Amino acid sequence: MSGTDPEAFDEFAFIANELRPLADGATEALGLRDDAAVVPGRDGWDLVITTDTLVEGVHFLDGDPPGLIARKLMRVNLSDLAAKGAEPYGYFLTTCWPPHWRLEDRKAFAAGLAQDQAAFGLALFGGDTTSTPGPLTVGITMLGKSPERDFVPRDGAAAGHRLLVTGTIGDGWLGLQAARGELAALDEAHVAWLADRYRLPQPRIGLLRALRLHAAAAADVSDGLVADALHIAGASGVGLRVELDRLPLSDAALAWLDGQGDRHAALAALATGGDDYEIACAAAPEAAGALIDAAAEAGIRLTDIGVFAETEVEVISSGVPVTLDRTGWRHG
Amino acid sequence: MSGTDPEAFDEFAFIANELRPLADGATEALGLRDDAAVVPGRDGWDLVITTDTLVEGVHFLDGDPPGLIARKLMRVNLSDLAAKGAEPYGYFLTTCWPPHWRLEDRKAFAAGLAQDQAAFGLALFGGDTTSTPGPLTVGITMLGKSPERDFVPRDGAAAGHRLLVTGTIGDGWLGLQAARGELAALDEAHVAWLADRYRLPQPRIGLLRALRLHAAAAADVSDGLVADALHIAGASGVGLRVELDRLPLSDAALAWLDGQGDRHAALAALATGGDDYEIACAAAPEAAGALIDAAAEAGIRLTDIGVFAETEVEVISSGVPVTLDRTGWRHG
Repeated sequence: MSGTDPEAFDEFAFIANELRPLADGATEALGLRDDAAVVPGRDGWDLVITTDTLVEGVHFLDGDPPGLIARKLMRVNLSDLAAKGAEPYGYFLTTCWPPHWRLEDRKAFAAGLAQDQAAFGLALFGGDTTSTPGPLTVGITMLGKSPERDFVPRDGAAAGHRLLVTGTIGDGWLGLQAARGELAALDEAHVAWLADRYRLPQPRIGLLRALRLHAAAAADVSDGLVADALHIAGASGVGLRVELDRLPLSDAALAWLDGQGDRHAALAALATGGDDYEIACAAAPEAAGALIDAAAEAGIRLTDIGVFAETEVEVISSGVPVTLDRTGWRHG
Repeated sequence: MSGTDPEAFDEFAFIANELRPLADGATEALGLRDDAAVVPGRDGWDLVITTDTLVEGVHFLDGDPPGLIARKLMRVNLSDLAAKGAEPYGYFLTTCWPPHWRLEDRKAFAAGLAQDQAAFGLALFGGDTTSTPGPLTVGITMLGKSPERDFVPRDGAAAGHRLLVTGTIGDGWLGLQAARGELAALDEAHVAWLADRYRLPQPRIGLLRALRLHAAAAADVSDGLVADALHIAGASGVGLRVELDRLPLSDAALAWLDGQGDRHAALAALATGGDDYEIACAAAPEAAGALIDAAAEAGIRLTDIGVFAETEVEVISSGVPVTLDRTGWRHG
């Protein structure tokens, strides 16, 4: 662990008091007393490594609670590991603190990390802490483990594979509006539930072994369901047909949808909004059933919303194709 | 590789055109087309992992050339690997671009990465690129390899071990002043040389195998020589005697020293300024000679500047102990 900011000597105390307990029991971390961590290699196992950074005002709202920011940071990275079928292992933390972040804010941030690393089975391996004259900027590089060459790729979809998605879609996009107070027409409970979905994603760690067994390709839904499904199709060199009428929607999203004039446009907005942190995956027809059963056992909803095709790319709403443009979807 | 900024769709083009070539030939990177990288495990080898982030205005100056910022970012991380005796392997890049950073700035940044990854034998494995309303913030998590349990620790020093340091000390601290135009009394060539030392550290990669063979403990000099040497002593549970008169100084630092009224205070300032990115290490007396010879063969100056002791901590200048206070050193 390093504190590279020459102006901020109390970083050493913060590392010792708040961060070192997060490395307890992880020999890889060398007690956070070294400049590096040491991760032993092991034949037959791959490390799956992902990194995501959150910037105040870009990926979370000014004034969001420190503990929730920490947990969102953990979870957006966990979501990537889940989509690869990799078991959470350890993480490296980077924090750039703005001047107005007091010690108690930092402690609340560390407490959020502690809560989620216990929940998901991770330890802190190392990191870097510094100051910034700009917005709070926090990043994690996360390590997962999977059996050798058994991770779930992005490029494994084939024509005829089903497109499946976990949970419900569109809540991240609605949740951002809810957190900003822009959904005044919805009842308070729905607004609060949606804002929570935005602030605290639910990484689908419970599905990762089933994904390794049954999925041919997967990605987490961060850019928007359609965009991420198209990333899978594009990487795999196949087409895709998505049925918006099958989109799994939360009660809150259904309530919102009821208030929209153009149902096609509203569905398209839910399907193209980002930040859901669900998993979209491809599975051969015979494997899709097993995957849905495994998800049900893990308490995770998994919905068949389309099929990978030879070449054509189609998004269908009420039986009619809708057409993509740069900023969203146009009903054609 | 991910571009998590919902407002910045051209991140995909930047990843494809500028970053993907940096991953050429690295199967670990999965072509930067996935959400994660996959690093195969191998019995008998450890991964040594370090992370450092640079913030504009904190770790480099506003207006520093993009290519040099990229190379400094590579090198502060390489410096940590070198101190651990780990061979450079691959890296994960995080970039938070401010709005005024144009495409050509980003291209120059990527070109700086390309130059140094070729020089030091690294490939880009993955990363995250986003925007920020604040200062440019860039981070690397870097992976090195070393034979199992053969990395150079921080806590291996014993009483009687020599304290050795590479290169010259104090140039980083002087270099920051030079880059800010604060060293008007020095001649132009020295000012330019010092500013370059601040902007472009020289990680001592050439010494890493010799460190694995001969050093008992090591750390890179980022917080300041005395502080980093004390980190080694503290982690190892021993004392330390540093002789400031033996401090290896560059011609530029010697010229600066000549202009200072209080030579003790000036030497102490060089020994406590940061950003040198040299390596401080501990070696048993019989190993110190071999280490100095190996350094000479690699074209790296290595100087014996003190000895680890049972318990006492002493910094000596012209035979007289100087006393540490919070902000520097006081001649006692």
